[in-house]
Amino acid sequence: MSYEHTVVREVEWHHTDMAGIVHFSTFFYFMEAAEHAFFRSLGLSIHTTEPETVGWPRVHVECDFRYPLRFEDSVEVRLLVREKRSKTLAYTFIFRKLNGDGPREVARGALTVACVKRDENGTMRAVPIPRAIADRIEVAPPEVFPA
Amino acid sequence: MSYEHTVVREVEWHHTDMAGIVHFSTFFYFMEAAEHAFFRSLGLSIHTTEPETVGWPRVHVECDFRYPLRFEDSVEVRLLVREKRSKTLAYTFIFRKLNGDGPREVARGALTVACVKRDENGTMRAVPIPRAIADRIEVAPPEVFPA
Amino acid sequence: MSYEHTVVREVEWHHTDMAGIVHFSTFFYFMEAAEHAFFRSLGLSIHTTEPETVGWPRVHVECDFRYPLRFEDSVEVRLLVREKRSKTLAYTFIFRKLNGDGPREVARGALTVACVKRDENGTMRAVPIPRAIADRIEVAPPEVFPA
Amino acid sequence: MSYEHTVVREVEWHHTDMAGIVHFSTFFYFMEAAEHAFFRSLGLSIHTTEPETVGWPRVHVECDFRYPLRFEDSVEVRLLVREKRSKTLAYTFIFRKLNGDGPREVARGALTVACVKRDENGTMRAVPIPRAIADRIEVAPPEVFPA
Repeated sequence: MSYEHTVVREVEWHHTDMAGIVHFSTFFYFMEAAEHAFFRSLGLSIHTTEPETVGWPRVHVECDFRYPLRFEDSVEVRLLVREKRSKTLAYTFIFRKLNGDGPREVARGALTVACVKRDENGTMRAVPIPRAIADRIEVAPPEVFPA
Repeated sequence: MSYEHTVVREVEWHHTDMAGIVHFSTFFYFMEAAEHAFFRSLGLSIHTTEPETVGWPRVHVECDFRYPLRFEDSVEVRLLVREKRSKTLAYTFIFRKLNGDGPREVARGALTVACVKRDENGTMRAVPIPRAIADRIEVAPPEVFPA
Repeated sequence: MSYEHTVVREVEWHHTDMAGIVHFSTFFYFMEAAEHAFFRSLGLSIHTTEPETVGWPRVHVECDFRYPLRFEDSVEVRLLVREKRSKTLAYTFIFRKLNGDGPREVARGALTVACVKRDENGTMRAVPIPRAIADRIEVAPPEVFPA
Repeated sequence: MSYEHTVVREVEWHHTDMAGIVHFSTFFYFMEAAEHAFFRSLGLSIHTTEPETVGWPRVHVECDFRYPLRFEDSVEVRLLVREKRSKTLAYTFIFRKLNGDGPREVARGALTVACVKRDENGTMRAVPIPRAIADRIEVAPPEVFPA
């Protein structure tokens, strides 16, 4: 059981835009990478057919930006499980720049994802998170969230 | 003066992911495209050096997803100015799928952007929105926001 | 029957990188958009199950760059069918900047795609292009290719 | 001095498309990541102002695809310097899938890049590669290129 996972990502050229800083969409790709690495850290894959095929579409996503990232910066992305409900999970992500004038928090994001199955028409319907998954995930205690 | 702008985008192949639906990051690209088209509709460019060079980094972004988009769907992105402050603008975006079982609202997003200048070190600092820009933008009245 | 199709694309902010010009990957997204619009112009979709489900993975892609594109540039992407074989199609793409110091050719690209089906294991296997598709596509005569 | 560099990349969710495989554009992002890591391995950065500011726009890029990559695949990207001229460098990239039924070559790519400076109008002009860079790069001997 776990309530957190941390990955480190390097800023690549194509993450930047003509303002010379990382385009904000990149933070969402990094959140998703941390989410999937979290599942792997639990012995799971976000894309699995065992014990049953479920998907995890995003219901709500957000990000607050405090400080820009630049090419070749190194950024730590720390996932914390903020909420676990029957059919949804909510994560918080703390982004910290590690190099240069870091470590310093540069952004904070959040994803709420629903567990879904598809019916025979391909329509997605929210379903309870399978036990084999839910049992490995716990909610982070309030004190581990930075101020 | 204006408080709204609408663009239509077609879902392209590279917007999709292996779940067969549009990846959520795409909604942010579409919001940004609508924001920049809004500026052009006012006779401005988001990237201008006249009367002075300012930038518009994102301070907060979010999106709620109700319904998936798929390849070759046509989506209307309607920007509404939700708030205008001295140094920031906040937009709401209503996404409506136009084809198939549409028109129907599929997502709702928001961006808060700050007006910044760079000092000689390249550090960005929030500044008042130039009059030539602020005077063309008004806040949308509450009744134009769909329920 | 047709051997060509033209689309126009506007350069968006996220297409740019910190060099202030369009990232080269964008040209491939534009080629693919032109390819799919070409299919729609023929009454087809690149993603179809009628009369049978085939896919079009890329076998070879390339692009030569002559001149940079920048934010808010308008670019014409002209697809020409260069070769039609039993199981593959090859396209040439002429990119012309329309605004500013244009019209001028800025890049030239190419895609070779194979028609494939998947077997029961999901393995893709090249198959003859279905008649309903092949019959609508012809090879462009040499004289329509610009020098 | 060096003529090669290897990086390993994991396929992320957003690299995939609705065909369930990695979108071909991803291979170009991986090539560029290997190119920039090659420069770092030489004690350089692709984005440097020392001893002088030069840029490296792409002149020609291409890729041949033999075998699809899928979500969570691990791929080795090996850069080899194929040609070093006064003002340009040409690289070959060998992509090998490491997991599952690998190691096996899945794609082979190439980039030709020009060394440029910008004049006062921002126009890019090809210039000789600075000695401090050129002296650290050598051409790979023919025998290291796989058949």
